[in-house]
Amino acid sequence: MPDRLNALAARLGALEDREAIRDLIAHYGPLADSGNAAALAALWVIDGEYEVVGFASAKGHAAIAALIDGPVHRALMAQGCAHLLGPVAIALDGDLAVAQGHSVVFRHHDGSYVAHRVAANRWTLRRCPDGWRVVHRANALLDGAEAARVLLAMP
Amino acid sequence: MPDRLNALAARLGALEDREAIRDLIAHYGPLADSGNAAALAALWVIDGEYEVVGFASAKGHAAIAALIDGPVHRALMAQGCAHLLGPVAIALDGDLAVAQGHSVVFRHHDGSYVAHRVAANRWTLRRCPDGWRVVHRANALLDGAEAARVLLAMP
Amino acid sequence: MPDRLNALAARLGALEDREAIRDLIAHYGPLADSGNAAALAALWVIDGEYEVVGFASAKGHAAIAALIDGPVHRALMAQGCAHLLGPVAIALDGDLAVAQGHSVVFRHHDGSYVAHRVAANRWTLRRCPDGWRVVHRANALLDGAEAARVLLAMP
Repeated sequence: MPDRLNALAARLGALEDREAIRDLIAHYGPLADSGNAAALAALWVIDGEYEVVGFASAKGHAAIAALIDGPVHRALMAQGCAHLLGPVAIALDGDLAVAQGHSVVFRHHDGSYVAHRVAANRWTLRRCPDGWRVVHRANALLDGAEAARVLLAMP
Repeated sequence: MPDRLNALAARLGALEDREAIRDLIAHYGPLADSGNAAALAALWVIDGEYEVVGFASAKGHAAIAALIDGPVHRALMAQGCAHLLGPVAIALDGDLAVAQGHSVVFRHHDGSYVAHRVAANRWTLRRCPDGWRVVHRANALLDGAEAARVLLAMP
Repeated sequence: MPDRLNALAARLGALEDREAIRDLIAHYGPLADSGNAAALAALWVIDGEYEVVGFASAKGHAAIAALIDGPVHRALMAQGCAHLLGPVAIALDGDLAVAQGHSVVFRHHDGSYVAHRVAANRWTLRRCPDGWRVVHRANALLDGAEAARVLLAMP
């Protein structure tokens, strides 16, 4: 019986991992669009990285929080914006995981909404003592360049 | 052993709650876009409320069903529309829960699609004898106004 | 005790089924936008079908892969595109399941993005020896025609 119980516990743990990762990523949009820079940065590990491929990279909580507290994002929020992240495909590998999916930034302009950025995302995550955290998020515009396709390729 | 079994059952129950809430919310779009007013209203508790912040509020099944059966929604359906709801971040608290996420209403017009409404949503849900139901859904356009940011702030 | 263990295992199995189906569908977009025709086709059973209602139907792995390897999709990828699939409502019925939700194809054009197709989807899935697979996916534009509403109607 303990064997069967252990097997059930392992299966349950895998579902919990996937749920925790999905929930972590589902917090990004609400935190970005409510301007909660500190809580957004805390989705990452201390030395985590958010890389916009071929453009810039923010490393560490202070740099990631600055993306949200900075003038570009604040201007976007003042005008109206939505960071919609789609569902992610998740591959678990022990204490690491990779999640892949799309993101769309809608921008409010003159009473209507435009899809300002449509991008590919690859999240690398790590199990930490207090739950899953993002180690690295790579984001690349789906504008025909190879970079975005690489992010969506099977891990 | 019963202790371990109880602990596993509690963890499993939490995952089932989250899955039930996610599935409930995932029904909103298909029910809205297929015009099933009665089933859509039944996602809410009997005296549940759907509030478009600063605009109007529908309270109770009849009022919520009227949003779908009314002339505005029917005209939108006839023209072509999609109520796309993104993934939600879910916070469970016993028999209550809060879910937060984005919604986009696409509208078909002259052979193309425009993002007609891009909004923030905060769902308050309650465990009922026959499953989770919505107590209150608040929706606010992400047009730069404070209302939408409040809905996406951490619960 | 074995009874209780069996009951827990059954509940856990239902959650695993739903997770597997969600994950399968979450792979469609990344595989389409990275151009992985073979892996995309393998989401379906051998004789599975992808039907664009009232337009065309691809049956079997070779025909489904050809949708991705064909000139239309390759031109779309070269220009920049995103196949964003929203969350799905899932109804399990033993070894079969139905999942329903929206899909949006964004197309990159002249530095901006347009919602090129906004569609309803109904996925019919079957449990196979190596996991859940798609038996049939029906997709129809939400352009006001009845076909899309049928796909989103309750199963």
